[in-house]
Parts: sequence; structure tokens; C-alpha cells
Amino acid sequence: MVCNLQGIIRNGNAMNQIDKNRIPKNQVSKELMYVGEMASGVQLTVPVYRLKALPNSNEEKIPSVYIQANMHGAEVQGNAVIFQLLELLKDIEINSDITFVPYANPVGCNHKNGEYTLGRFDPITGVNWNRMYYFDESVIAPFVQKHIGSDDSTIETSFKQLLLNEIDQQLNHNIYGLTTGKLITFQLQRLAHQADIVLDLHTGPISSKHLYCPEYCKNSASYFDIPHTIFIPNSFDGALDESTFCPWWTLQEKFKELGRDIDISQGRLNKESFTVELGSQEQIDLKVAHQDALSILSYLKHKDVIVADMPDLFLPQSMVRYACYLKDYKAFYSPMGGMIDYLAEFGKPLPAGEPLARILRMDNYGDGEAIHNISLEQTVIPILHFASASVNQGTELYKVFSEYFMLPDLGS
Amino acid sequence: MVCNLQGIIRNGNAMNQIDKNRIPKNQVSKELMYVGEMASGVQLTVPVYRLKALPNSNEEKIPSVYIQANMHGAEVQGNAVIFQLLELLKDIEINSDITFVPYANPVGCNHKNGEYTLGRFDPITGVNWNRMYYFDESVIAPFVQKHIGSDDSTIETSFKQLLLNEIDQQLNHNIYGLTTGKLITFQLQRLAHQADIVLDLHTGPISSKHLYCPEYCKNSASYFDIPHTIFIPNSFDGALDESTFCPWWTLQEKFKELGRDIDISQGRLNKESFTVELGSQEQIDLKVAHQDALSILSYLKHKDVIVADMPDLFLPQSMVRYACYLKDYKAFYSPMGGMIDYLAEFGKPLPAGEPLARILRMDNYGDGEAIHNISLEQTVIPILHFASASVNQGTELYKVFSEYFMLPDLGS
Amino acid sequence: MVCNLQGIIRNGNAMNQIDKNRIPKNQVSKELMYVGEMASGVQLTVPVYRLKALPNSNEEKIPSVYIQANMHGAEVQGNAVIFQLLELLKDIEINSDITFVPYANPVGCNHKNGEYTLGRFDPITGVNWNRMYYFDESVIAPFVQKHIGSDDSTIETSFKQLLLNEIDQQLNHNIYGLTTGKLITFQLQRLAHQADIVLDLHTGPISSKHLYCPEYCKNSASYFDIPHTIFIPNSFDGALDESTFCPWWTLQEKFKELGRDIDISQGRLNKESFTVELGSQEQIDLKVAHQDALSILSYLKHKDVIVADMPDLFLPQSMVRYACYLKDYKAFYSPMGGMIDYLAEFGKPLPAGEPLARILRMDNYGDGEAIHNISLEQTVIPILHFASASVNQGTELYKVFSEYFMLPDLGS
Amino acid sequence: MVCNLQGIIRNGNAMNQIDKNRIPKNQVSKELMYVGEMASGVQLTVPVYRLKALPNSNEEKIPSVYIQANMHGAEVQGNAVIFQLLELLKDIEINSDITFVPYANPVGCNHKNGEYTLGRFDPITGVNWNRMYYFDESVIAPFVQKHIGSDDSTIETSFKQLLLNEIDQQLNHNIYGLTTGKLITFQLQRLAHQADIVLDLHTGPISSKHLYCPEYCKNSASYFDIPHTIFIPNSFDGALDESTFCPWWTLQEKFKELGRDIDISQGRLNKESFTVELGSQEQIDLKVAHQDALSILSYLKHKDVIVADMPDLFLPQSMVRYACYLKDYKAFYSPMGGMIDYLAEFGKPLPAGEPLARILRMDNYGDGEAIHNISLEQTVIPILHFASASVNQGTELYKVFSEYFMLPDLGS
Repeated sequence: MVCNLQGIIRNGNAMNQIDKNRIPKNQVSKELMYVGEMASGVQLTVPVYRLKALPNSNEEKIPSVYIQANMHGAEVQGNAVIFQLLELLKDIEINSDITFVPYANPVGCNHKNGEYTLGRFDPITGVNWNRMYYFDESVIAPFVQKHIGSDDSTIETSFKQLLLNEIDQQLNHNIYGLTTGKLITFQLQRLAHQADIVLDLHTGPISSKHLYCPEYCKNSASYFDIPHTIFIPNSFDGALDESTFCPWWTLQEKFKELGRDIDISQGRLNKESFTVELGSQEQIDLKVAHQDALSILSYLKHKDVIVADMPDLFLPQSMVRYACYLKDYKAFYSPMGGMIDYLAEFGKPLPAGEPLARILRMDNYGDGEAIHNISLEQTVIPILHFASASVNQGTELYKVFSEYFMLPDLGS
Repeated sequence: MVCNLQGIIRNGNAMNQIDKNRIPKNQVSKELMYVGEMASGVQLTVPVYRLKALPNSNEEKIPSVYIQANMHGAEVQGNAVIFQLLELLKDIEINSDITFVPYANPVGCNHKNGEYTLGRFDPITGVNWNRMYYFDESVIAPFVQKHIGSDDSTIETSFKQLLLNEIDQQLNHNIYGLTTGKLITFQLQRLAHQADIVLDLHTGPISSKHLYCPEYCKNSASYFDIPHTIFIPNSFDGALDESTFCPWWTLQEKFKELGRDIDISQGRLNKESFTVELGSQEQIDLKVAHQDALSILSYLKHKDVIVADMPDLFLPQSMVRYACYLKDYKAFYSPMGGMIDYLAEFGKPLPAGEPLARILRMDNYGDGEAIHNISLEQTVIPILHFASASVNQGTELYKVFSEYFMLPDLGS
Repeated sequence: MVCNLQGIIRNGNAMNQIDKNRIPKNQVSKELMYVGEMASGVQLTVPVYRLKALPNSNEEKIPSVYIQANMHGAEVQGNAVIFQLLELLKDIEINSDITFVPYANPVGCNHKNGEYTLGRFDPITGVNWNRMYYFDESVIAPFVQKHIGSDDSTIETSFKQLLLNEIDQQLNHNIYGLTTGKLITFQLQRLAHQADIVLDLHTGPISSKHLYCPEYCKNSASYFDIPHTIFIPNSFDGALDESTFCPWWTLQEKFKELGRDIDISQGRLNKESFTVELGSQEQIDLKVAHQDALSILSYLKHKDVIVADMPDLFLPQSMVRYACYLKDYKAFYSPMGGMIDYLAEFGKPLPAGEPLARILRMDNYGDGEAIHNISLEQTVIPILHFASASVNQGTELYKVFSEYFMLPDLGS
Repeated sequence: MVCNLQGIIRNGNAMNQIDKNRIPKNQVSKELMYVGEMASGVQLTVPVYRLKALPNSNEEKIPSVYIQANMHGAEVQGNAVIFQLLELLKDIEINSDITFVPYANPVGCNHKNGEYTLGRFDPITGVNWNRMYYFDESVIAPFVQKHIGSDDSTIETSFKQLLLNEIDQQLNHNIYGLTTGKLITFQLQRLAHQADIVLDLHTGPISSKHLYCPEYCKNSASYFDIPHTIFIPNSFDGALDESTFCPWWTLQEKFKELGRDIDISQGRLNKESFTVELGSQEQIDLKVAHQDALSILSYLKHKDVIVADMPDLFLPQSMVRYACYLKDYKAFYSPMGGMIDYLAEFGKPLPAGEPLARILRMDNYGDGEAIHNISLEQTVIPILHFASASVNQGTELYKVFSEYFMLPDLGS
């Protein structure tokens, strides 16, 4: 019994965007990637859009880009951002290839429980869709042994090929098969590994905009129009950003252990991966998506992926920028069941003792406290809160920066 | 096998609200009503709060009141409104008894699917929790035959007793039992039948404030601070408001058929029932709840249930008030699957051809239309929209007044 | 905005079943019917298989057949029965057209909540998928007025056309659109209205085989190899069988009121519709499906739809056959929450007082009764029970024949 | 804000089992442990039953026992086994304390999605309820340093206290709170740490009986009447069995590293933990539960926890016993979507090439393969399969022993 349809890419035709007035600079091609099938036999597909750079006479390597959205079913705004990016990029000169995958998760995207879209996990297994990517650290030490004397370009090419081979091995040579989720994520990851820059577009539940940024890319964070950044260490927990930067970061560390410095954040290697949290889930706003597309273009210009016709185009906005380390990005779990009147504003310091929320407990009215004020004993910056007013004891109520610092404002 | 625990009311003790400064005018008593049990044996209970009027020397009968909230799991704001009503009523003189039931549905209230609370139906059967109340029209004609010569007071007492007997019969003398939902709703209805005025506090998904008002109560609608009213006919579809006004309305009609006029909207009978839609689900806002409590007090003052110390207290706010008949309150179903950027503002006329929403279809980008504008060919007033951006073809996208008229503004 | 894709039928090509040895008597054609689309734009389709009878020189009209399966997501065994029917019918002479629709509900079919398939209702609205079909009784009286003097053949043709026009009107001329469920069911119903005989293949939760049979078709019930029949009256509650027999039955009644007798169970009209309950949900058993296919062929031979090569082929099996009227088909709701040890055997009378089930209540161990025996005070025939051991108070525990009688055994 | 209600144990009164004829040897006491609360304020409690051994003049330490059931909502049979154990143990002499916790998960136990109980994970977060227990390995090395010269009894007492302190620290001194799941699991674990032997009663989806046994307890496996055993290594993945044996096993290893041998499987320490898989979920069968209770008594007699009046009581049954290592216990994921006719019998070797299952794909009928046979290229022993016939590509279809060996048959 053979099942080798995985990852066959169909219908890859270049097509002109319909634009009555003039010829766009770039043409988008579209493919459908087959990622699975449902009980009725219906095929699960993911659309893949590509912008190809013109052949580049430039000596310098410009990083290629992979942008994905909607891995969590309810986090739809990234699709609108990809729409606005494609519209904007039609007429912008690009130096490297950019691949877009909206609707990345065809199971999650269409899965309703009641009125809402089941957000975060496989409805059969409960596994978070963004904890299923692949990384096997054990392959790195042997690679470093072998390539201790190779040049950066060879290292880049060979290690990228190793990562792709690993994924192929999982997808096509596993007699016991793979879970539904891994069939999807591993194929997305195969596309992502082919690029140098990876942006995974998510949202929080009810949330401010924030950015997950690996610590080694901290200089890039301020190019996004996003006021809150979480710096993450080299630790793999199954997410797409980690699955694409951890291998390179670990590679750098292993070379270092053998006494060789390679720099993965520029030059030949130039690998960056971010999870971009666009705001709240269950919402499409095309106007805000336009702003978010400009934010991403500001970052892409910083990385030389796009060329601005005029010097003041695609610059980051001026804003107060806060950051914290992942260890200080705390979930606060509700100390009681009840119904929440969320009070704290996102994105600015909330002094110790000021209320995060009030909890209504009508069952206690008359013979107990019907209203409970919830506060913390330290100053924090609230970043997001739970999506519903009804919480159990232990529901994740808020996420906050418990320790924080400022990032430079590069805006004009 | 006997199961006669239904409706036993426990722990009914008067208690003082803790108020350090002074003695409140009214004391709240609290009871727990047992309405079922879960697989683990855990008991399902509903808290019942009561304010008792002082003995009334007045000749005139003042209607008693029943106010319920949160029958649909996600529609929580009514609990906050009951909290604010209880706080306000501590110091207001009342002329009749008022009963409050927050958390009316202990199954729905706590039922999570993903982050959200499953809103509208029994998770096992799919039946809408607000379509399970009881009304058997066939008992009315015999009653009218028998009481054609009775006075209003006897009619009121006897018919109320008939309705209560009917519910008791269902709850306690049905050898095949009742569904989980009916065990809950019938007991709530038993409390509601004991009052003259019934307010069922709901919310829409994402919604403006609106009121379901039986046509015969239209003069009362303008006393609520709610700008949109839907007038409903004498047709029973299982909801609490219908289950409490349809019997009386049908009684009036049946007497009329035999040539006798009784007036159920004032005097001895004085029966009114409303479904009050407070705004959006999944939200608690105690400040807004205070406003909504004042809105209800304005109506209760109009019905002489409460006494205002000063003449300008508890008057309706001034506002533009729109109304429509139920037959003209239309659901608009999405003509396609996609992700919705909801555009239309609630509560004001949207001219024909103006966009209700834009639908994003990234799968069509490049080889079809990625953005679809949705509009109607007639002017409508949008009242609410679906709770999620992701919709299937045929999902209820908006509800609108398709024909409408103005109600008088009684506000100062 | 126009949405006229509904019901376009694509890919209708005749194809040979792959059969290496010989040419089958009948060829199956396959089409895909488009019935909706999901949030990501994925199209919802339903496969339609057709067997065409050879042109029939016979004077007598032989009824055409429509067989559908899996309208409820978890009730999958009907798909296997359609498979076995198609395999068997390849080599059987047929006198009329037969249409098969497996996987009739592409939303329900693929909808998982945990490991199980959400069975019975639209996950967004809670509406039972088999309560969404269409019947507007008001069109019949005018039709009868007009056709009081028409012959049976004209009545048959014209009334069928009226029913189809009604459905088309709903599907294509409704500016406010239709629900997701009605977009599916109305298109299935359009196919069903084109046939004379309709079989809707369902299953119970954990269940014996049983048959829903309209009272006027009672002579046909004993041709199925199904030991339990429920006779249903002419009352429309939204199910497919009702939506296809109620119009004709009502037609017959309305003609009767005007003094004319038409016979809808034979001759030109010859309309029969059944809901066939094949056993338990969540199971595929191809061997049992073969038996169920033979059961249906026995009925089809009785209706002259198929021709048996030999006289003893396709005869009903001998069995004890019980029947009851719908009003006596009782749901028994659990008198308490708990965990159920289901004891009663399906399909044979359970004497009064004998245990249906034992309910475990470990929370009561030591200070109450941990085991409760559940029995009824009358003899019943248990037909099905709930799918899970865990029940709330009021969960539908069993369905039983509370009064019953025998049907003739036609088996050899 | 303080939340120190966790773990308060209420209502702990000894009570006599109602037994009209004679006085039981042992008396059961019952307590309710508070483990959380829901949005409506309803308290989540877990019943805790205790049998106390008489004061033991014996020098030898007899291990105390903790038995828990129903951590996964659908896995209910363990509650029935606890019932039968309590019934049997009333009249059996016991040498040590035994604690029973049925309905261990008051959220999972009552959580319905459709007809079934949501089995395996928190409906809000998706986290598997049996992956939330606590173990922080970092505390062990310092403990070993300190106690390198202590005697076994001191080690046992001090290390148990350390484990309890760790849990207390988590439950009561965490200003950001704990998840709903950890509030439950950590309190269960606190009870489990107080015992020496831990049995966590689970079931598979549709499953044979099997046992998860830590490798160091392999001699105990054959005392259970369970024909399939999976030997698990010292690796913590969040389950209760691991959370209670990994600390002791790691302790033994760390002592070993420092040159001291302690034996955790007998004498003063005598720590064993098993996950007992009783068969299929969603079922209560009190007769089978009686057999399973005898199986556990056989093991408890082997551990001297109970005393048999007669020598041939409480002995293991004779049976063929297979075992495998965890690394060889393979999940087989469906290579395609479809509807499954499960064919392979549980518990006996299935030769390479023999069909595990047939997959029906009616959408392919006519123009593809409608039936696909699924087999493996090696001999395996199927242990369990998925609970539903409908599977997606990548759904876990079967779990099998891919390599296996025999265990001794101790039965008579």
C-alpha cells in the first residue's frame, strides 16, 4: 500500500492579476498543495502564491521569504494581510522570491463548534496545530563535524538540503504514517525551509499586536510597526518559527563549540523567523490589514527584499516599543471561576495593585462577595486576554510582560 | 423508581446585604433551585433571588416581576444587569415582588468548546435552550367555557393555577421522563408563571440592543432605553416570553370569540413578557450593565412596580426608536463561504446597494475575485451580525429590519 | 449579487465499472453535485450515482428509486449498503432508474468533535440535519381544485413538477438566501422528488434494525429484512421521508375531501418513502452491508424495480416482525445522572419490572445508593439506546415500543 | 488576592456500608476534595474513599495503595471497577491503607460534545488530561547528595515529603496561578504520592485490556489478569504513573551514580505505578468490572496488601501473555481518509500482509478503487483501534505491538 501523493503540487500556472489599467511589475503564480484528505474523501489543499524575483546580477545574496497565515483556525486576519501584501507588491520591485500561504490549515480553517472556529488544536487529538513542526537536533553535530572547513555558501546549501531531506524522510518513508497535523505542518515546513526569512502570521485571542522574535534577530524587531516584542531563546517547542530558526541557531552554536564563528543573521546565511501576532482572532479588517502589510514591507525593505522608489517609503512608524524575554512573558490564570469584566488596557504598564479585571460571581450575591477585583503585586504590561467572559478557575485570563524594557524607536 | 427531587427549593433564608453604612430598604432572600444532575452526580442548581414588597394596602393590583438571565450559555451580560438591579433596588421602594434568576442554565453556562461558551443549544441534542418551554393551547377553550361568567380576579387566579398545574403535570407525572432541557426550562417557567411581568435577558452574537415585544404591549416598548423593537405575534415557538404571554393572549382571544372582552395588559391581569437583547455575547461590562439596569427600572416605574423618590427619576432616555414586525425581521444568509469584513453599522438605515460586508476569498486570488461586496436591494436597518469572521455558504450573516417604522420618543 | 451555482451538476460521464471478466448488465454513471462551500472556499460536493433502465416497452409504469445515505454524520453504514447495492445491481436486470447518493451531507460527514463524528445537527445552529427538508401544504388545495378532473398520469406529472418548482423557487429566488443545511437538503430533495420510491438510510446510536414506514405503505414493510417497523402518520416534521410522502398523501386526502379517490400506493402514482435504520452508528461492516443490500433488493423486487433470474431470489427472510405506531414509540429519559450499564436486549419484549439498565453512582457510595435499577411498569420492546455510558438527568436513554403488534412473516 | 481553598478536604466521616446481614471487616470513609470551580461558581469536587488498615504489629512495611479512575472523561469503566473493589474489600483483611478516587476529573467526566463524552483533553486548551502531572528532576541530585548516608527508611520518608512539598509549592505559592488541569492533577498527585502503589484506571478507545508497566516492575505484570503489557522506561511525559514512579526510579539511578544501591521495588521503598487499560471507553459493564476487580486483588495479594482466607483465592488467571517495549508500541496512522471496516482481532499476532482493515471510499466508486485493503509488512499484535469508522488521512487507526515477547503465565 503506497501513499505517495503527499506534496504533489498541481496547477502551477503563472497568471496575470486582473488590472485593467497597466501591467504590474510582478506576476503572481498560484498552486494548490495537497496536504491530506477527510473521511468523505474530500481533498485538503492549501493555496500557494509565489512572486518570483528577476534574475539578480547582484553579487550579494538577498534572502527569500516565506509568509504563512491562519494555521490556527480562528486567526484569520493574516489572510487579509497576505491579500494586501499581494496587492501592494504587484508594483514594487523585488530582489528575491516571496512565497505566500494563506489558509495554511484546511482542517482548522473550516472547523466550527457553535458559531466560532475551533482555534488552536486538532479536534480529534487536542494537539496544538502550531506545536507539530519538526526538528531533530541530533543531525547537527555530525553535519558540523563534516563541514567544519566548508565555506558559508556550501554550509548554507548543504544544511538547507539536510533539513529538506529530513522532512522528506518523515513524509515519504514512514511505514506507520504520520498524524493528520504533521501531514500538513511538515509540508508547510518544507516550503518554509526553502526560504531564508519566515513570517508566521497569527493573532491572539483578544489581543494587542505583538511579535515573537528570536534573540539573535533583535535588531530587526523595530522595523515592524508592532509595539511589543517577546525575545525567544533557542529552544524548540514545535512552532513554525522555532522549527526554522532553531536548526540554524543550533548550527551556529555547534560550530562555535568547535571554535568556528558563523553568522546566521546576515551574509550568505541570513536566516530570520518571526511569529507575528496581528491582534484579535475571529476578525477580518481589510483596512487594518493594509497597515499590517506596510509594517511587513518596512521589515522586508530593511532586509533588502524590496526596493523603495523613494527614500521615505516603507519606513517603520514611530512608536514606544516594549520588549520582554520569553521567561518574563507570563500567563495569569484565573484564581476563581466567574464572569470577567476585563479592565486593563493592553500595551501600557499597569501599576501594581491596579485592577486587571473584575470577576462577577452572582451565585455569591447576598452571602458572599459578588464582585472580586483582580490585581497583581507588580507592574506589568497586559498584552492579551481570554476570548470569553466566562472562565473556570485556572483559565488563562491574561498574558503580561512581567519584566520589560524599551526597544529603540526607528520611526521618523 | 421515583425521582421527586425536581423543584425542591433549598436554603431559602433571608439575608442582609452587607452594607456597612445603613440599612437597605429591601432585603434580598436567596434560594437554590435544583434542576438536574450530570453524569458524575453533580447537582445542577440555579440561584433564585427575591425581593418582597411590603404588604400593600392599595386597592390596585401591582404586577409582580420575574427577571431571568443567561439561558444561552454565552449571553452573560444579563447576570451583570441583575447584579446592578439588585444593588439599585436595595434602596428603592417597591410595590410588588421581584424575582431574579441569573445563571438560569447551569449546563449552558459552563459548557466550553474551545475558548468560547457553547451558546445556543444542548450539546447532546442540538435543541435551542430557548425553544423548550411549554404551552398546550388545547386547555384554553375548556377554561373559557367554564369561566365565561367569572370576574377578572377569578379568571386571573384560576388560569394562573391552571398553567402551574400543567407544568407540574409535566414535571412530576411523566413516567417516560423529560429531556435535560425541559427539566430546566419547565422549572424556570413555573417561577415565571407566578409573576405578571417576565423579562428574559439575552444578547445577540455581535449586536445592538433590541427588544422582542408582543404586539399587545407596544405602548411599553418605549420605556426601555433600547432603540430597536421587534413586535411579535401570538405564535408559540418555545421561547420563555412566548410561553408566558401566549397563554394569556390566547385566553383573551378565546373570550373574545365568545363575545367577552378581557384586557390582559392592565388592571387585574396586566401580563407582559419581553425578551431583552442587551448587546453582544461573551462580554461582561458592569458599567453598561448599570445603564441597562436603569433602563429596566424605567420600565418598572412605568408599571408602578417601583416608586421614584423624585419625579425625574427612572424616566426613559431620549432616542430615535425604530421598530419592525417579526415577519420583517430578516436573517440574511451568506451567499458564499469566505471570511467577512463586517462593514454595516448597527441601528441606522443602510441604503440599498450600500455594502453590508466584504467577503475575502484568498483562494480565488489571481484567478477569480478575491473580494466580494455584499449588499441588499432595499434599505434595511442592520441589528446584529454573526460572531465569527469565518462563514460557510448559508451561515446567518446579518439580521436586519427589512421594513420598519418609528416609535414615539418618550425621553426628556 | 447573484449566487446561481446551486445544483449545477458536473462531470456526468458514464463509466464502466472495472470488471475484468465480463460486461456488467448495467452501467453506473457518476456526477458531483455542488451543494455549498466552506469558509476557506472549499466546495462541498455530493457524489450521485445513477443506474439507467433500458427503454421499457411495458405498458405498466415501474417506479423509479432514490436511495440516500449518511445525512447524519456518524450514520455511515448506509454508504457500505450503497456500495453493496451497486455491486449486486451490476448484474441484475432493472426496470426503472435508480439513483444513489452516499455521503449525502459533506459537512456532517467530516465533522469531528473529539474522536467521534458529530452526528445529528449543524454544529453552528444545532438544527437536526434531517429536519430541514421542505413542504408547504398550502399549495395542495389549489392544485386539487385545478386537477379535480385530470387523469392519474397528468396528476402525477403535474404534481411532481409543482414540487420541483417549489424547491427551485426556494433555491434560486430567495434574496435573503438559505441556511447551509437547506442548501444541502433542498438539493437532495430535488433529486428525491424525481423518483417514486425514496429510501433514506440512517442508523440509530446503538441500535437494532428498524424501519419508519408511512401507514399507507404497511404492506411493503414486511419485504425488508427488518424485524421492527414504526408506522408514521401524515405529519410533516422536516425529514426526507416525510417531505416526499406527505405531499402525495395530503394530495390523496384533499382529493378525497372533494370526493375523488386516487391511490398513491400503486399504478401511475406508486409513491413510497422509508427511513431505513440499519443498526448502530460509527460502524462500517461490509458483510452486514451485503445482507442489508439483499434486504433492499427484496423490497425492490416486490415493487418490480428489479427482475429476479430465478423465482427464489430476492425474497424476504423469515422472521418475527413487530410493529408499533409512532405515538407509541417512546423515548425514555434518564431519571438521574450517572453511568449506565445497559442491560435490556433489543428487539424482544421486556416484561414490566425487568431492568432496562443499571445506573452507577459512585458519588453515593457509602452514604446512598451506588447502583440504581431502572425498569418500566409495562412491557416494552427496546429498540435502541444512547451511545455513551455517561448520561445526564434527562438524556434519552432508550427508545422502546410501548404498545406493539405483529406483522405477517412473508419469509420462506 | 488569596486563593487558598485548594485541597481542603470536607465531610470526612467514617460510615457503615449498608449491609443488613452482618458487619463488614472494613469500613469505608468518604471525603470530597475541592479541585476547582466553573464559570457559574459551581464547585468541582472529587470523591475520595479510604479503607484504613488496622494497626500493624508486623515489622515488615506493607505498601499503601492509591487507585484512581476516569481521568479521561469517556473512560468510565474504572469507576465500576472501584465499585466492585469496594464491595469485595468490605470482607477482606487488609494490611495497609487503600485510597480510591473514582470520577477523578469532574470537568472531563461531564463534558459532552454531541452524544459522546469528550475524552482526552481540556476542551479549552486541548491539553491531554493525563499529561499535566508534575515532576521536576532537578531536585533529586541535591537530595541524593544530602542523603547519601541515610538509611532506607529515612530516605523513604524524606523523599516522599520532598515530593509533597514540591506539589504544595505549586498549588499554594504560585502568584500567577495554575491551569484548570493542573489544579486537578496536582491535587490527585498529592494523594498518590502519599501511597506506595499507584493504579491509574483507564481504557482505550475500542480496545483489548493492556497494562503500562515500568520496566523495573516487570515481575508484577503477570499478577494482573491482563494479557498485554507495555514496558515503559524512566521517561517523564506528564502521566500519573510516570509522575509517581519516575521520581523514585531517578532517585535510585542517582544513588547508583554515587555508588549506592537502593531497591525501590521492595522492602522499605516498594514503589510501583501502573496504568491499567480496562478495555473500551464509553462503556460500563458491572460484570466485567467484577472480573477486573479480582485481577487487581490478585496483584494486591502478591504485594501483601490483602490477605486471602484460603490459599487459592486471588491468584492470577492462566493466559497467554504478550509484552513489548514502549518504543515498539506503534501507532498506525491512516494512509487515507475514508470509512473503516476494522478487521483485525485484538490480542493475537496478525501475520504480515493480512488485512488490518478495509477502507471504503464511495467517492471513488466507478472511477477508482472503492475498497482499499490495509495491511502491514510485518507481523504485529493489534491492541486497540480508533473509536469511529470515519477517519481522516493521518488519524490514529490502530495501535500494535510491532515487536513482542511472552511473559510467564503464573496462572493455575
